[in-house]
Amino acid sequence: MPIRAVASRGLFGIAPSARLRPSPYFEATLAEGATSFTIYNHMLMPTSFGKPEEEYWRLIRGVSQWDVACERQVELRGKDAGRLAQILTVRDLRSCAVGQAKYAPMCNHAGTLINDPVLLKLAEDRYWFSIADSNIWFWARAIAAERGFQVNVSEPDVSPLAIQGPKAEHVVAAIFGDWVRTLRYFWFRETAIEGIPLVLARSGWSKQGGFELFLMDGQHGAKLWNLVREAGQQWDIAAGAPNWCERIESGLLSYGGDSDDHTNPFEVRLDKYVDLDLPEDEVIGIRPLRYIRASRPQRHQLGVVFEATEPMVPDFLWHPILRDTRKVGDLTNCTWSYRLNQNIGFALISTECLAGDTVEILKQGRKIPGKLAELPFI
Amino acid sequence: MPIRAVASRGLFGIAPSARLRPSPYFEATLAEGATSFTIYNHMLMPTSFGKPEEEYWRLIRGVSQWDVACERQVELRGKDAGRLAQILTVRDLRSCAVGQAKYAPMCNHAGTLINDPVLLKLAEDRYWFSIADSNIWFWARAIAAERGFQVNVSEPDVSPLAIQGPKAEHVVAAIFGDWVRTLRYFWFRETAIEGIPLVLARSGWSKQGGFELFLMDGQHGAKLWNLVREAGQQWDIAAGAPNWCERIESGLLSYGGDSDDHTNPFEVRLDKYVDLDLPEDEVIGIRPLRYIRASRPQRHQLGVVFEATEPMVPDFLWHPILRDTRKVGDLTNCTWSYRLNQNIGFALISTECLAGDTVEILKQGRKIPGKLAELPFI
Repeated sequence: MPIRAVASRGLFGIAPSARLRPSPYFEATLAEGATSFTIYNHMLMPTSFGKPEEEYWRLIRGVSQWDVACERQVELRGKDAGRLAQILTVRDLRSCAVGQAKYAPMCNHAGTLINDPVLLKLAEDRYWFSIADSNIWFWARAIAAERGFQVNVSEPDVSPLAIQGPKAEHVVAAIFGDWVRTLRYFWFRETAIEGIPLVLARSGWSKQGGFELFLMDGQHGAKLWNLVREAGQQWDIAAGAPNWCERIESGLLSYGGDSDDHTNPFEVRLDKYVDLDLPEDEVIGIRPLRYIRASRPQRHQLGVVFEATEPMVPDFLWHPILRDTRKVGDLTNCTWSYRLNQNIGFALISTECLAGDTVEILKQGRKIPGKLAELPFI
Repeated sequence: MPIRAVASRGLFGIAPSARLRPSPYFEATLAEGATSFTIYNHMLMPTSFGKPEEEYWRLIRGVSQWDVACERQVELRGKDAGRLAQILTVRDLRSCAVGQAKYAPMCNHAGTLINDPVLLKLAEDRYWFSIADSNIWFWARAIAAERGFQVNVSEPDVSPLAIQGPKAEHVVAAIFGDWVRTLRYFWFRETAIEGIPLVLARSGWSKQGGFELFLMDGQHGAKLWNLVREAGQQWDIAAGAPNWCERIESGLLSYGGDSDDHTNPFEVRLDKYVDLDLPEDEVIGIRPLRYIRASRPQRHQLGVVFEATEPMVPDFLWHPILRDTRKVGDLTNCTWSYRLNQNIGFALISTECLAGDTVEILKQGRKIPGKLAELPFI
């Protein structure tokens, strides 16, 4: 097999080491036949069970259960927890109630995106940032210590399991009761099932609807996994994973995959989560973001639709986007779309380029023609 | 195959995503037949080429070349670079000259180890922390910004390639000239070969001696890899990787693998790299480390020698260590030692336990008897 094919299919093993952590659902997902994994926040996350198209349609039409324990929690607890939470995100948290979650992008002192977590407010003095793939414990501890805050930053024993798809509500109601049907999007409640403590939230990294069970005792991983599996049987639930195709179709951002070390939130369509009237002396990133907002934007995020009819496979690299032979941006992901029946991807690209423009992608030595499009695709 | 065997052998693929970065040597190592990888600092690092025993003996008796580009550089540059470098490490840097490197453990404000990089002083206002597997860019930027320092924290285009083993010096001298033979341990020089700019250091993550070539232009990865491969032919060089067995025999620490989120440097034998007379108001971690040093230590790091004669395989988990049925610590790694002809590993264990004590390890449902030993083994 040619080297590039090997590389793009990830056909090599992951060497065991305690630097990498298996999730409480690890054994259960192996028993389900997980065929590939990624490393996310130093944890193993299954990415496929060997039947990508079947996994995709189950998410779109039915219900799927995912090990997303790698969405690890950064807990802030103590007198200054609320103050620190607000300092760490560029989104205004004043309207966030106990029991509510908010998508809360984080920036550094230069206004660069450093994570895009979901914040859960468990109490006035207790918050979880459910994080994307970068180390926010170090970041939060550095800020808290340097500012002399009274807050403990730690990782609680919490492991999310996602139940996603249009039939997710039936499964979750079958387990927890009909009250879950009235739970609003991005709200949550602490509850328990068969002695297993958890936080139940209406959330998840897909646009197909669903819930996340934040398991609060890692010993019960297999038990919770199987309990969901059994309750979901009548809706044909099966093991899946955050779906590469669905998330691209839906325009969901992957921090670190679709962003680089100088991406600001405006470049990746997060404008509505940035509150520039937050106090700039306090909240990290607000001052530079005001300047950035006031100046001419350099890059933005668009979709790309390809002419190629053979399914394109993702890769570990960004690929240059050319217009009239000049590099104008990067293709940050790509996939075959089962609903659109064509190849699609995200472009992080010069603001000179607009939806409708024709471009070329340099991928594995070939130039692939494509057209820019608005996001989301669906 | 039983699930645990699958898990411990890492027999599943790594899903491609631009969240994970291939190194400039990636194609070259695939061409060499890399069979397993790990993710380290969000990069793919080959861990084996399918012949573990052969790779081991080549490191012990000959010379081996490794893709260690994942030892990424955190560059500090500017007026306050030196001041920030000292604030970030608990080792006194006053004696560090330009052209010299120092093993420089980093702690947080609680005295917990957060990385154990090698610091290279390139100029009075330019330093590289060549880091272990945790995000130090965020950490360094948080501290620099909160203290108002004039320093730029970035990642330069630098990718280390290690040449390790008793014959490494011959290979490096054949490429760069005999001057390399006089280069002292942990000193380096900026140089170039066939137009490829690099920093050449006498360093590397083994106790078999050798060099690291810090490639300063990622475009030349394959060229540098092949240049070393060809120059090393007469000494039978081949592709290898940081060697799991050799590093355990030699007592080398793996940050994040052998340490956890509350490990201090004294617990993992780093006492001699901690300078408690550094100013506690300035250098992060010194104040708590003074208290920790003055109080009774809780854990320390020892070796374990096992009675089991069948080679033990590493795992993604720590394993409990019992003495008289009570948990006294954790086994953080294990390996079959080719030189000792027995299984060995590291214990992070109560200071009540001493070398010579008999213990039991709980691993995959079995109790394996072992004896504590001093580190290093060899």
